[in-house]
Amino acid sequence: MSVAIVGVGQTPFRRSCGSSIRELCFEAFRDTLTDIDLVPKGIDASIICSAPEYDKQRSPAGLISEYLGLNPQPTFYAESICSSSSTGVKVGYSFIKSKLHDVVAVIGFQKMSEISSAEVQERMGRGADIQWESPFGTMMPAGYAMFARAHMQTYGTSEEQLARVKVKSSKYSFLNPLAMYRRVVTLEECLKARVIANPLKMFDCCANADGASCVILASEEKARKITDTPIWVAGIGAASDTLSTTARTNLTGLTCAVEAGRQAYRMARIKPEDVDVAEVHDCFTIAEIMACENLGFCKPGEGGKLVEDSQTYIGGKIPVNVDGGLLSKGHPIGATGGSQIRTIVLQLQGQAGKTQVDGAEIGLVHNIGGIGLYGNVTILRR
Amino acid sequence: MSVAIVGVGQTPFRRSCGSSIRELCFEAFRDTLTDIDLVPKGIDASIICSAPEYDKQRSPAGLISEYLGLNPQPTFYAESICSSSSTGVKVGYSFIKSKLHDVVAVIGFQKMSEISSAEVQERMGRGADIQWESPFGTMMPAGYAMFARAHMQTYGTSEEQLARVKVKSSKYSFLNPLAMYRRVVTLEECLKARVIANPLKMFDCCANADGASCVILASEEKARKITDTPIWVAGIGAASDTLSTTARTNLTGLTCAVEAGRQAYRMARIKPEDVDVAEVHDCFTIAEIMACENLGFCKPGEGGKLVEDSQTYIGGKIPVNVDGGLLSKGHPIGATGGSQIRTIVLQLQGQAGKTQVDGAEIGLVHNIGGIGLYGNVTILRR
Repeated sequence: MSVAIVGVGQTPFRRSCGSSIRELCFEAFRDTLTDIDLVPKGIDASIICSAPEYDKQRSPAGLISEYLGLNPQPTFYAESICSSSSTGVKVGYSFIKSKLHDVVAVIGFQKMSEISSAEVQERMGRGADIQWESPFGTMMPAGYAMFARAHMQTYGTSEEQLARVKVKSSKYSFLNPLAMYRRVVTLEECLKARVIANPLKMFDCCANADGASCVILASEEKARKITDTPIWVAGIGAASDTLSTTARTNLTGLTCAVEAGRQAYRMARIKPEDVDVAEVHDCFTIAEIMACENLGFCKPGEGGKLVEDSQTYIGGKIPVNVDGGLLSKGHPIGATGGSQIRTIVLQLQGQAGKTQVDGAEIGLVHNIGGIGLYGNVTILRR
Repeated sequence: MSVAIVGVGQTPFRRSCGSSIRELCFEAFRDTLTDIDLVPKGIDASIICSAPEYDKQRSPAGLISEYLGLNPQPTFYAESICSSSSTGVKVGYSFIKSKLHDVVAVIGFQKMSEISSAEVQERMGRGADIQWESPFGTMMPAGYAMFARAHMQTYGTSEEQLARVKVKSSKYSFLNPLAMYRRVVTLEECLKARVIANPLKMFDCCANADGASCVILASEEKARKITDTPIWVAGIGAASDTLSTTARTNLTGLTCAVEAGRQAYRMARIKPEDVDVAEVHDCFTIAEIMACENLGFCKPGEGGKLVEDSQTYIGGKIPVNVDGGLLSKGHPIGATGGSQIRTIVLQLQGQAGKTQVDGAEIGLVHNIGGIGLYGNVTILRR
């Protein structure tokens, strides 16, 4: 029995949304139900996804399932920092595949503006080991700066190649009405921007955001009744790495992404070259370069050259993050995985408008939690 | 294909454990692996369960899976307040049933002593709707006091009947070496104790605790290799109710428990009278009385009489919480569901020592999250 994605939706991603978390989730949920033949009572279970440190409400699953009219159906909560909604999709997939449920809604959200910037900083720091690592400065930018430095030293990757990732993403977010940053930035601007964590400068980093996404999964039988254009989950992979970066043997890539990709390719019975369009976790420019290598879109060390040669643009070997990615579309943590899946579903349905990749049949989503801690790869098929 | 529980373990439950959360989880994990033929590398996936508001560490799944030697296997996080590890068991069950994984470890923990009592109070209050309910005082004790009052008015349940639940639980926790409170309390002591939220007095309420539990699930094929005494998951039910108690039509029972029970009984193809031993969520004495009614161990309104007639003692119609329950064994939130399952597994394996229910073949676990928000019922079979 196959499992399909029957609906996707999201809110605009913004710096500060001005809504409560329940309203934010409702907006994404309503957007999802608009075009499909499904009402809340037809949903068997919901999975709410977020990084809880940013919420004032405890256990948001209860709040949101009530507000969306999903009682008495069971509701679950998935958290894996920045990949929470990809994790939610894996749990939802298994609920359907195991025949415990038929139709599952996965709703991811984050309202990072709920708390002050100083609080966001403090809580983000707690994503590394608070006893042995984060007190010494291993926050997100520092961790990825370390990966960038290792990549530059090992493979000769340049700051200009990093910047080219952002130039590309800004080009596509300009075309995405739901994106947070819609201004095309130049290579020069990127290279002259202020340093955040050397060698990463301002445009190499994504920013705090508010937003919500929704993905509805269904069994094959239900899927045919809900929509004419189901998109099939062909492969799912998940893996973990050590929380301590000091315990890792390789800093030029993410082991959890390699392992999750391997699982997903095997399950989908495809190879990297079969992928027509991909969404990868570009929380920093170096992250997209590592992702392309870890997923086998190019050889290790050649990720910088891949973007330099425009091979990750539409028309290139493998179009990557053509919705603007985390860097330009925005990265409201818990909503990100669902938004990546939305982009790929629209691509496979031929509904991606100005950024449509012609004839896309197989798409891939790569979503990472923490500093290379949780790896999630999902492969979808028309 | 059936899914089995192949191993269970837990730490002692204490007011303050003096260990870090990683050490606490390790202790429960080691306890689980001691008697079975399994090493960490044989575990395909882990699910870490807690209520995150009490942790200083963000996203504890990454920390704990590293410390237990579970990388690069994927790790997940489940949260449903006080029923987090029951939720984890449902997710683990579905991972195996869907053939995504073969052996899954579900580790629940809570170290409530990690933060100050005042902080615990503040965070516990955020379990109700922080916009419309908790600012007006609907914390845990107030919510359950409201249920108790409604039950007394509707059915004539007495404060003495409530107290008898605690008298029973203290009798059994006296026999449980891992229990937090091991002193037998008298009916008189219970009735004279200070009021917490009228009509609930001190001994009607459970207390903050530290502890961890572990449940390892496996596919039928793997289970036979890991242990000679697998215990089978026969039924699993889960349901939600509105977060707002003001939106509920009935305050004398928990709709989410009735619905979760109905699902679990149907899946297991048994009736309430087939259950030989049960662990129910007695966060307050009234909660055990409502649980017995909601699960069909007696008619609505007769839960007080059931304990008064000693029918929930060993030798009675349905022995309930013979390990001391949340009231006396302790309630370290994220660890509770796993500990309840451990008790039932030991009962069905005939390993429950002084509190063994003779010939127990079918056992039930009832675990509630929030103020009647998340209902979870799991039925196990020898």
